[in-house]
Amino acid sequence: MATVTLADVARAAGVSRSTASRALSGSSLISLETRAAVQDAARALGYRVNRAASALRSNRSHLIGLVMNNLINQTFHTIAEVVQRRAAEAGFQVILCITDADPHREREVLGMLADHGVDGAIVMGTGRNRSEIGVLREHGCAVVHLIRSVAGSDAMTVLADDVAGARAATEHLLGLGHRRIGFIGGPLEADSGRERFKGYADTLADAGVGGLDELVRRGPLTAEFGSEAAASLLAVDPPMTALYAANHEATFGILPTLAELGVAIPDALSLICHEDMRWLALWRPGLTVVDNGAGELGAIAVDLLLNQIRNPSADGGRTYRVGPRLIERDSCRRIDRIDGGPG
Amino acid sequence: MATVTLADVARAAGVSRSTASRALSGSSLISLETRAAVQDAARALGYRVNRAASALRSNRSHLIGLVMNNLINQTFHTIAEVVQRRAAEAGFQVILCITDADPHREREVLGMLADHGVDGAIVMGTGRNRSEIGVLREHGCAVVHLIRSVAGSDAMTVLADDVAGARAATEHLLGLGHRRIGFIGGPLEADSGRERFKGYADTLADAGVGGLDELVRRGPLTAEFGSEAAASLLAVDPPMTALYAANHEATFGILPTLAELGVAIPDALSLICHEDMRWLALWRPGLTVVDNGAGELGAIAVDLLLNQIRNPSADGGRTYRVGPRLIERDSCRRIDRIDGGPG
Repeated sequence: MATVTLADVARAAGVSRSTASRALSGSSLISLETRAAVQDAARALGYRVNRAASALRSNRSHLIGLVMNNLINQTFHTIAEVVQRRAAEAGFQVILCITDADPHREREVLGMLADHGVDGAIVMGTGRNRSEIGVLREHGCAVVHLIRSVAGSDAMTVLADDVAGARAATEHLLGLGHRRIGFIGGPLEADSGRERFKGYADTLADAGVGGLDELVRRGPLTAEFGSEAAASLLAVDPPMTALYAANHEATFGILPTLAELGVAIPDALSLICHEDMRWLALWRPGLTVVDNGAGELGAIAVDLLLNQIRNPSADGGRTYRVGPRLIERDSCRRIDRIDGGPG
Repeated sequence: MATVTLADVARAAGVSRSTASRALSGSSLISLETRAAVQDAARALGYRVNRAASALRSNRSHLIGLVMNNLINQTFHTIAEVVQRRAAEAGFQVILCITDADPHREREVLGMLADHGVDGAIVMGTGRNRSEIGVLREHGCAVVHLIRSVAGSDAMTVLADDVAGARAATEHLLGLGHRRIGFIGGPLEADSGRERFKGYADTLADAGVGGLDELVRRGPLTAEFGSEAAASLLAVDPPMTALYAANHEATFGILPTLAELGVAIPDALSLICHEDMRWLALWRPGLTVVDNGAGELGAIAVDLLLNQIRNPSADGGRTYRVGPRLIERDSCRRIDRIDGGPG
């Protein structure tokens, strides 16, 4: 089938061979019209690039790796969809890599990406494997850390502003008159667990609300932990009047537990969840959430990565933060101070 | 960095060069122990395969394409996760391709996969682009159609047994005494829309229940349509006593509409949804569903694909069906025949 050459395509499209080559490789230097004309000519003639051969020639594979813990978390699959879409528009394809948050598997995945000669990688990782990431970068692979930073890595990093997100949730509840505000969140070892707790605790401290240790539960990112933590918080006296569910895994446990125990939302308890999911808007009542901006996180990460691939001298090291957005629905109510007990 | 050779790795691991090569390429002919020993040696020596060079040599890229409409649908991201995991275990990486169910974009994606010399592709597609898929196969690329067949393609096909799924839902409702059973589903042009309607209609016909045209709503796979269809069905007199929501997009519209209109489930209406999602179990009441076996669909598809890659003479053309499973929760109740009106 390899009888049609790049020169044939260039001739049919009325452009030079190098323009045709750049158009087919998705170069942003070529106008959309020219790209379309060259692609049409290539399609009409049945021309196919041999990516393996052209990767050896150009040292460009047009592949990028996307390393993530899982695809089930809505934040992750939203990011994967956005990254794939924008990368494809720029002529790059995404190799999907799922690590189950296992640093050993992640290390294997990073090695495999090096083997495939990817031009770049977005790593939503375990926060480990700094040296393997360094090796990737030495091989000329652009790297962006997403969601979770890697201590000591000087690659670009895109993070959700989790402190601000937790602050927004806590301030919203304080503004409605709540003082006894419970917290269920992830472990301090996870960036998100640590930062969301900090946003919550600092906001309460700034407001002069203290002594809420008994209303804090931190543990693994699982529905089971959310369920246990909710049941345990409901047993505290004086009771909490509001609860901040600081990750979506916990939310999967907290909601059925509150329903089973007959806790009316928002009459008996105001509730804010961190990380929006489509069904949280359908829940009755609709749940007020801190939207972490998954789509925006993915978009910025892939744009930074593509820029770095095209311009390898681009500045590394910088950290970008995507701010939260509070989406008010019907799960929080205003209370009089007295409702909150002596707090 | 290319100073360490395959021969060095083979020597360190105490195996032949060809065994080392096969071990590093993930061949299933090499024992797990030998693979581990070779991989350890390669890691210790800092040896990296150059996939682009080895793809040219071996005509094997160790890449497979996964073409799908979106990643938001739980069926799709569950499949993507399973396919990636099993492929990686076998030494293959997955290029993720999202088409928005646009046949034109799908055609571009198939061409791009040919450019990258993928060894195989799983296509959950628009049902079009038979000729492009033919070209891929002529280039030696293994293909499995998943979820949706392509008329005239002789590639292997893995489908959900949607007729059986709809039959299971309808029989369950008939068994509880329901006769006026509503249907909200996709268009007849979609395999799933056509087959789920057939399963519903045939089951009612077999049971001698007829004349339900007024309780059937078919339309686009959107939440908006589900919402309109639910409202419109609730206005029919005599009323339906049960509803089969035949796709997850419709379910996203049906559930809030039933809640807004104050329809008590299952007291006023029994409800079964097709395609399980994690939050449907959390909904109050927990929703009885037809689980289409997304994980099993992905597992069979990737196993068939890998088998075909390793053994290109493997029989094509066959269609495999993955059966449904009815998961009973709390959204259906038994009724006396009289409740159903004159039906």
